[in-house]
Amino acid sequence: MAELAGNVLVGQSGGPTAVINASVAGLITEALNHDCIEEVYGSLNGVLGILQEDLVDLAAESQQSIRALKHTPGAALGTCRFKLKKPADLDRILEVLKAHNIRYFFYIGGNDSQDTAAKISAHAAAAGYELRVIGVPKTVDNDLPGTDHCPGYGSTAKFLAATVRELAADNESMGAGDLVSIIEVMGRSAGWIAASTALAKRRDQPHDAPHLIYLPEIPFSQEKCLEDIRRVLKREKYCQIVVSEGLTDSDGNYVSADPATDAFGHAQLGGAGEFIKSLVEANLPGVKTRLSVPGLMQRSAAHAASKTDADEAYLVGQAAVKAAVNGETDKLITLVRGDADHYTCETGLAPLADVANTVKKLPREWINEDGVSMNFQFIRYAQPLIQGEVVVPQDNGVPAFARLDKVRVEKTLPAYVA
Amino acid sequence: MAELAGNVLVGQSGGPTAVINASVAGLITEALNHDCIEEVYGSLNGVLGILQEDLVDLAAESQQSIRALKHTPGAALGTCRFKLKKPADLDRILEVLKAHNIRYFFYIGGNDSQDTAAKISAHAAAAGYELRVIGVPKTVDNDLPGTDHCPGYGSTAKFLAATVRELAADNESMGAGDLVSIIEVMGRSAGWIAASTALAKRRDQPHDAPHLIYLPEIPFSQEKCLEDIRRVLKREKYCQIVVSEGLTDSDGNYVSADPATDAFGHAQLGGAGEFIKSLVEANLPGVKTRLSVPGLMQRSAAHAASKTDADEAYLVGQAAVKAAVNGETDKLITLVRGDADHYTCETGLAPLADVANTVKKLPREWINEDGVSMNFQFIRYAQPLIQGEVVVPQDNGVPAFARLDKVRVEKTLPAYVA
Repeated sequence: MAELAGNVLVGQSGGPTAVINASVAGLITEALNHDCIEEVYGSLNGVLGILQEDLVDLAAESQQSIRALKHTPGAALGTCRFKLKKPADLDRILEVLKAHNIRYFFYIGGNDSQDTAAKISAHAAAAGYELRVIGVPKTVDNDLPGTDHCPGYGSTAKFLAATVRELAADNESMGAGDLVSIIEVMGRSAGWIAASTALAKRRDQPHDAPHLIYLPEIPFSQEKCLEDIRRVLKREKYCQIVVSEGLTDSDGNYVSADPATDAFGHAQLGGAGEFIKSLVEANLPGVKTRLSVPGLMQRSAAHAASKTDADEAYLVGQAAVKAAVNGETDKLITLVRGDADHYTCETGLAPLADVANTVKKLPREWINEDGVSMNFQFIRYAQPLIQGEVVVPQDNGVPAFARLDKVRVEKTLPAYVA
Repeated sequence: MAELAGNVLVGQSGGPTAVINASVAGLITEALNHDCIEEVYGSLNGVLGILQEDLVDLAAESQQSIRALKHTPGAALGTCRFKLKKPADLDRILEVLKAHNIRYFFYIGGNDSQDTAAKISAHAAAAGYELRVIGVPKTVDNDLPGTDHCPGYGSTAKFLAATVRELAADNESMGAGDLVSIIEVMGRSAGWIAASTALAKRRDQPHDAPHLIYLPEIPFSQEKCLEDIRRVLKREKYCQIVVSEGLTDSDGNYVSADPATDAFGHAQLGGAGEFIKSLVEANLPGVKTRLSVPGLMQRSAAHAASKTDADEAYLVGQAAVKAAVNGETDKLITLVRGDADHYTCETGLAPLADVANTVKKLPREWINEDGVSMNFQFIRYAQPLIQGEVVVPQDNGVPAFARLDKVRVEKTLPAYVA
């Protein structure tokens, strides 16, 4: 493989996670190991920063800042939800990449973002511009195909498992067979996040919370839900419910859709928790309800991040650079679990085309017959991903996060008017 | 002061906190130091456990369990929201206390709970039964008068300050002057919790999130709120709002009251965040909104507890026993801040009658003129309360909490039919 000399460009895209910046740290650190790489740039707000030539010099950041990225939530470079539609956009992107001699492009993101990366790669290839494009997986939703799991998922799972165990302690002290506590979690079309709260149960304590997990994979029935709750309240002081925002009925309609949709045509959800709360209040007289909707909290809870997840997020960043330098392109870095009884994980590669715009759902065989709890196969899968704690430095009692200097790379092109 | 020989009874009441069990641990540990104290009992579910003679032997718990109480959320003995109304209830309570030779009664709770403690004390005194009653402060709301601050508040403040800083990192990467992120926090009639999120701002960074804090102390105006948001969005990529559940309009009505009320006649709130979200969506076209409603999460987040808070919760438990053994009764243990520049805190005593059923609001002079931000006096007050982290042992990646054996004390009385 001929060595390709040139500059690196890194972008972040889609919803942030607690560890998405650890991947940036891994990328930068690894890039500086390779002589063929000259400059290491970041694109502000994903592809929007390429379109607008808003690039920053990541090699100019201090070592402390890069290190602090490993525990900093949000997307330090800014992110976007922007769907490339117009041919002119792709032309402009290529123009900017050429103007800055970008030969390595790394895009950290989920399904939609990897579709964007694949389009940029195809456009460069068609134009005969040598560009190596490697996708770096990221999504709390854990729904990317081709990888055992996704960086970001483990930290959300760890935070929510702790949260459900804490809610359980609170509910247990308040309930008398008359309390339904609901937490609505993310998960637009796959129930990985909701399922992960099953990790709150102690080993061999199947009656621990969460008692009922409502997943997008299982069509929701109001009658069954009320039966489920009555069954739990007969046995327990309280019923802890976890509900995925993407709950659908047997016709495939969201139980609580809001008419607004995002730029990718996804329905903006919210309200599945409120829906179940109202259902209980209307049908189970004398039962109290409590609702928690952590929203963005669950994807940015760096203070409770999984060390395994943060380490793997860093690893996929490093692996992306290594793969590109070794001549790979149009690939997504994947996480590959070892076969041993104890958990091991290394990186692999999958074609970008295989992962873009598709969604990996929870296997039905990992969900119990009752449709509202997870079996040992899921626990075996998910438990290793939440192990270990990230030590976050404190600033007056509050986690201290990286603030990048974001030294701008001089623009060389006229402004882009889309 | 004549030594009073007899047994101890401890109860927990009202909403739990992340550190309410640390007070139980302090009480038990201290009680075992005093020869005049024979048995150390706990009442299950506050006064309900006394009425029903549901008592447990706390001295029978293992040392590990007592130690684990220091980082266990919820109320380990169970709690209640029960208002003593009927004279027969007070007679029954006295009968149970006598039957078990309870001479020391400690009630861990907030305003309403201390009213209950005061009534029990008065009833025992009127009947000529020597009983020493000491209230132990507890409330995330921080609204008990007579004490500098309340155990429980610092941990909720620390969790929410971390959360707002994390949300800020997420929002900053997503926003482009078009994002309003809202978090609704607890605080029925005082804004201490909402105000505490001001601790998320870095020193000398007044433009950090939270940008707007809506407090129950300041009548809410929709027009001003929309102006506030427009002003922030002109300057920042996003506007982070913190809103207290107990927001009221200029007529004193909750902006989002639900008709249900609890046993004390308090309106069950919820919806202030949803209210502001709808306000923005209806009036600021093109602006995206995100809403987090942590609900019970914010009072049970032991994984993010303040060490200062946990230590002080333990301390007030110890102090309650010491005070009672020294002959005090009808008192609430208070926290008294030292005058030194560096934070120090010791315990004091206040008459129960002074604290029951009254609410301490945020001083107006700690709120800036703009009505939506806190000044240095508040920061100086609150910052020491969130210092230090509690190390919580992990069980397969999830915080491990105490489970008490709850060895029942044999009942000696007929069942109580209220």
